[in-house]
Amino acid sequence: MSNLPGTMKWWGWGDESIEFDIDAHPSLWLYLSSIFQFPGTGKTTPPVDLESIVLQAQRPNPDFANEVLSQLTVDKPSRGILCDSKLERLAHAFGKSLRDLWRVRRGIVPYAPDYVAYPASHEQVCVLVELAVKHGVHLIPFGGGSNIAGCIEPARPTNRSVVSVDMRLMNRLLSLDAESGVARFEAGAMGPHLESELNRAGFTLGHFPDSFRFSTLGGWVATRSAGMQSDRYGKIEDMVVSLRMATPAGTIETRSVPKASNGIDVNHLCIGSEGTLGIITEIQVQVHRQPERKETYGYLFPDFASGAQAMFACQRAHCIPVLTRLNDPAKTALSFAYRSRQPYLQHQAGRLVKLYLQKVRRMDLPTACLMIAGFEGDRESFRRDRRRAEAIFRKCGAVALGASPGRAFQKGKYDFPYLRDFMLDRDVLADVSETSTVWSNLLPLYESSRRAIQSAIDAEGTPGLVGCHISHSYHAGASLYFTFGFAAKGGDGLRQYLRIKKSAEDTFLENGATLSHHHAVGYEHLPWLERDISPAGLTAIEALKSGLDPLGVMNPGKLARGFSFEEWGLGKESERASRAIGSD
Amino acid sequence: MSNLPGTMKWWGWGDESIEFDIDAHPSLWLYLSSIFQFPGTGKTTPPVDLESIVLQAQRPNPDFANEVLSQLTVDKPSRGILCDSKLERLAHAFGKSLRDLWRVRRGIVPYAPDYVAYPASHEQVCVLVELAVKHGVHLIPFGGGSNIAGCIEPARPTNRSVVSVDMRLMNRLLSLDAESGVARFEAGAMGPHLESELNRAGFTLGHFPDSFRFSTLGGWVATRSAGMQSDRYGKIEDMVVSLRMATPAGTIETRSVPKASNGIDVNHLCIGSEGTLGIITEIQVQVHRQPERKETYGYLFPDFASGAQAMFACQRAHCIPVLTRLNDPAKTALSFAYRSRQPYLQHQAGRLVKLYLQKVRRMDLPTACLMIAGFEGDRESFRRDRRRAEAIFRKCGAVALGASPGRAFQKGKYDFPYLRDFMLDRDVLADVSETSTVWSNLLPLYESSRRAIQSAIDAEGTPGLVGCHISHSYHAGASLYFTFGFAAKGGDGLRQYLRIKKSAEDTFLENGATLSHHHAVGYEHLPWLERDISPAGLTAIEALKSGLDPLGVMNPGKLARGFSFEEWGLGKESERASRAIGSD
Repeated sequence: MSNLPGTMKWWGWGDESIEFDIDAHPSLWLYLSSIFQFPGTGKTTPPVDLESIVLQAQRPNPDFANEVLSQLTVDKPSRGILCDSKLERLAHAFGKSLRDLWRVRRGIVPYAPDYVAYPASHEQVCVLVELAVKHGVHLIPFGGGSNIAGCIEPARPTNRSVVSVDMRLMNRLLSLDAESGVARFEAGAMGPHLESELNRAGFTLGHFPDSFRFSTLGGWVATRSAGMQSDRYGKIEDMVVSLRMATPAGTIETRSVPKASNGIDVNHLCIGSEGTLGIITEIQVQVHRQPERKETYGYLFPDFASGAQAMFACQRAHCIPVLTRLNDPAKTALSFAYRSRQPYLQHQAGRLVKLYLQKVRRMDLPTACLMIAGFEGDRESFRRDRRRAEAIFRKCGAVALGASPGRAFQKGKYDFPYLRDFMLDRDVLADVSETSTVWSNLLPLYESSRRAIQSAIDAEGTPGLVGCHISHSYHAGASLYFTFGFAAKGGDGLRQYLRIKKSAEDTFLENGATLSHHHAVGYEHLPWLERDISPAGLTAIEALKSGLDPLGVMNPGKLARGFSFEEWGLGKESERASRAIGSD
Repeated sequence: MSNLPGTMKWWGWGDESIEFDIDAHPSLWLYLSSIFQFPGTGKTTPPVDLESIVLQAQRPNPDFANEVLSQLTVDKPSRGILCDSKLERLAHAFGKSLRDLWRVRRGIVPYAPDYVAYPASHEQVCVLVELAVKHGVHLIPFGGGSNIAGCIEPARPTNRSVVSVDMRLMNRLLSLDAESGVARFEAGAMGPHLESELNRAGFTLGHFPDSFRFSTLGGWVATRSAGMQSDRYGKIEDMVVSLRMATPAGTIETRSVPKASNGIDVNHLCIGSEGTLGIITEIQVQVHRQPERKETYGYLFPDFASGAQAMFACQRAHCIPVLTRLNDPAKTALSFAYRSRQPYLQHQAGRLVKLYLQKVRRMDLPTACLMIAGFEGDRESFRRDRRRAEAIFRKCGAVALGASPGRAFQKGKYDFPYLRDFMLDRDVLADVSETSTVWSNLLPLYESSRRAIQSAIDAEGTPGLVGCHISHSYHAGASLYFTFGFAAKGGDGLRQYLRIKKSAEDTFLENGATLSHHHAVGYEHLPWLERDISPAGLTAIEALKSGLDPLGVMNPGKLARGFSFEEWGLGKESERASRAIGSD
């Protein structure tokens, strides 16, 4: 099954054949070295070999396994419905959080599922759920395995068998209602496959998260994902028209209607449930005619505040590019350092632009901020939207840099996680923490979070950096997306990371923001959940769990209370380097 | 307390001093008479006197009452916190559904709350909830009492004391964040008060349901209400940023963030909960700067399909008036018959327009359909939006009728319920049933529903009419809003009505649509709930109930399974005229 599309390397991000090519970015090494002070160019902390990894012993449940095989192989060959090879188990143990990569690269794999199941239909998923209940087995839905919040590992060790339910065989476009602009997919459809199915009919979903190549529709819905074009197309929860979710209490099924007043919105009980209530098997989403024209441009603002003001003004003028991403100065520097090798003329032209900006426009380059903005539509609306947005940008002091930074962004937009692996090879730990807040709190929260993260890095006595971008804007506010990295000190890196990560989340919560805008709770954000949604809010979530999954079959320990910072990895008890998850 | 703003007559809709003035609509009487064949102009079935109404005996709970009074009167005079006068109990017994009015006008009041409470703060609501749990008392939140789906009467008789919690003392604007465009209100703020508070600061919520003058923000949120301008501003669930809800398990409180990925969206567990989980006490909503300019216009389309095509085309062109309401031929006829007395010149001009439409535009008046469309914004966007929409309308064959039909609509938009009372005075029963569906199903569903309702009226062997309008359009579909009326035959009217109402809802559900687009479930739609949201969906709702309100204190019997058509009023058991709800 490991030849399924979207299968990632077990030790890092993305396709096994792809490694980050630092030589394609001639300024990058110098830039990174100046910050992280690499001792040399080589890998200092490469991942271990597969052979050296010892998984926890399988906890078999032969009754479950036999009944699955006998019930699900009636009209299909048995191979692949239930796997338990070392590679399958390892590949389904972790997502791609910083903690996940840090552990697996060192051969620290305290948890792996005991089986991996590959259902091929809603009905097969129902059988799996039913048999899991009958035999006391845990199920954890698996989409692309690319989540970075610890979504597919039990929050706590368990003695029961755990089955990772890999949804990728369920990837069909079930129906497309072109007139209504709605399409029904099986939940295991990966981003590229889903888009190509829609594109063939002239449509697009318009959902392009950073994980696009390695994530599924079901995963997006289960985690309340946001794509880069959410300003136009909404977050995934805004796109869902109806769905099916197989739960231990039966299949929840909603109707294909645009809006209703039929009590509590049942779609919203399933969206964001992170596999704790059941397995989402089918989803009907809004789809849109592919635009005639689309292009992405770069703009340079004098500072972060003026760029943020431009995004705000666009919202208020109902003139909203499909994509707006404003880098702060640190992330602007990283973006420019990241640029690919350029032909001589283009390189010289870039130098001239820089001179113009400094001398003529008197732009203070260390404070200047790069904004990427994308437009799409028919020729007329494309031109109109762009003209109106650029008028606003200019009013806020922007200089248009043309399409070249936009194209660079589009070209490299899915590549950053590969750079993270490159850094990990050199014992530099880089990660992201993101949130959202109302407009009036955006810049204050930016400042306090940036300071908190920088102080946390400084407290480790190690070189590092923190940058931020604003993206995903709404009427009431926007998202802040922080990227931070630091040179780890030997085996202590994970705990250093956790302390820095904690400072970010603590600051979000202290300042009225949320634990995540689009990365989910998983176990990485679990200690903050109760504070975010209030104790009674969590009681409501736990009530849903008790009612739909009374035996606690689904994704154990998630979206639940009582997960302490000690369990998370920062308690007195956990002065070890790894998070203690394994057989107990 | 009956002098609170928004207090309605106990026997019908709206302000006690207002009665429908048929003389202000010179064509209306002739039009209605031609359909319903009134025997004369006078009232044949006026409401009974207050004195003749006998309420069920109060089921007192003195321990509860005493503890409420002692705990809630510390810093306030005791008067009014807990009332039990006949008028208070009667005024809080029913909403304004057709069934409610039919019963109360005949003095059939099988249920009334035993107390009416008027809390003045979130904390007071918490005390009420706590004491209700302690003393085994039911609580039913009361906003404006204008719902038409049976939302504030227990679904089944109960032996416990019932307290109607009237929220109208809690109507304060708590905070306005002008930059972020969010305002926090107490949940009891009535429409006009809320808008005037916002208008004073230059803002509007943009939520104008038909019940606007007699409904509250909390009621809107608890029922997933939609206002006339939902095309621009969204349904109420799209406006909620955060909220507080007092439940028996504590206060649910969400954060003021535009979007999050923090598990299941807790706002959506409270929105649409119809008082079954707790009492919503505070809500933060998106608000918008008041537009510089706004105007509403009329357009005449050759037929219903071409008008629907125009609404669809506007959606696809992202050119969406703030309000679009397309009447079918029957409702178009009603609209024209409803027109107010006009000055002579205007009347003559109308005749000329009619001649022009028939002779020059060859419009077939019996099939022609009136659309009302509204635009607003700054001068430029108003002009642009209107120009683009009108180009689409023209392409679909529309003739612009100017602002006069739009102004007539704006003037009379809240008055239709008064006409319903006028009809009830003459034993004509009129009501509405609405739903939503995807675009590809819109006209087929319209045809089958219209036929079903008309057949149901015909089957009663009585004259009647059915009309429909399309409103509230979305990317994926729109709402269908049916209005129907028939001349009742003596005391059997309620059961005749229920059979007709059932035919509408059955047709919606059989054809993939939902039980209601914006009128809530209440008990009027309760028999269809399980079919609408699926059995497991209802299990999820009941799980929330068990977890947050294990003793079943809140709004008993609602959003629950097992409510049969017999209990609803159409079973063999209920061949009586009234729905059997009373002490058991």
